[in-house]
Amino acid sequence: MLEKTQRINLLFDFYGALLTERQQQMVELYYLDDLSLAEIAENFSISRQAVHDALRRSCQQLEEFEAKLHSLEKFEHRQQSILHILSELDARILQPIGEFQQLELYHPLVSIYHKIERLLED
Amino acid sequence: MLEKTQRINLLFDFYGALLTERQQQMVELYYLDDLSLAEIAENFSISRQAVHDALRRSCQQLEEFEAKLHSLEKFEHRQQSILHILSELDARILQPIGEFQQLELYHPLVSIYHKIERLLED
Repeated sequence: MLEKTQRINLLFDFYGALLTERQQQMVELYYLDDLSLAEIAENFSISRQAVHDALRRSCQQLEEFEAKLHSLEKFEHRQQSILHILSELDARILQPIGEFQQLELYHPLVSIYHKIERLLED
Repeated sequence: MLEKTQRINLLFDFYGALLTERQQQMVELYYLDDLSLAEIAENFSISRQAVHDALRRSCQQLEEFEAKLHSLEKFEHRQQSILHILSELDARILQPIGEFQQLELYHPLVSIYHKIERLLED
């Protein structure tokens, strides 16, 4: 369940804006704010079953957007590449340079390292 | 017009899969393959005006997806950041190191440079 929740949260980050306002509210209440179906049902004055169906439909739609656009897949692939670059830069360059106190290279490279790291947030 | 065509092509890369099959065909024929409205009209056995309206609607939808998801905007921002990192790595590190023939650092750094460059394609 945790894994499904994480995936829905990620898909919601990418495609949530394509759902209706009401769908967005329900997904947020259930998957982000961790309310129960019964609590959400009360909020919207509808049955627990209706909330369940609406959530299932929203998750389906989010998966359909991903099947067509692959934004999450591309994002995860990009994150992997960036992490790989960072670990290589650290192990093959920064650590050796640090040991030999080549500070005129060390500081600009650390600044570049942090700029690459910031790509993880984009 | 060229600028609009470029933008539609980029938006189509990101969101084309969300259009109907028929919309995708028309956008490809007009914006990628550069066919005229009259030629497309003949292909689909509809009026030139109908093609014009369908294309206008498709472009509108692509812009609406961008307004909601910002994938193109984020992509362009990411490209700028990567290009900035590459130019800094080149000017502040690779060029000085190359001059001083510090080859034990130069080669692994060039390999890292190319890996960062490949992020531009993601």
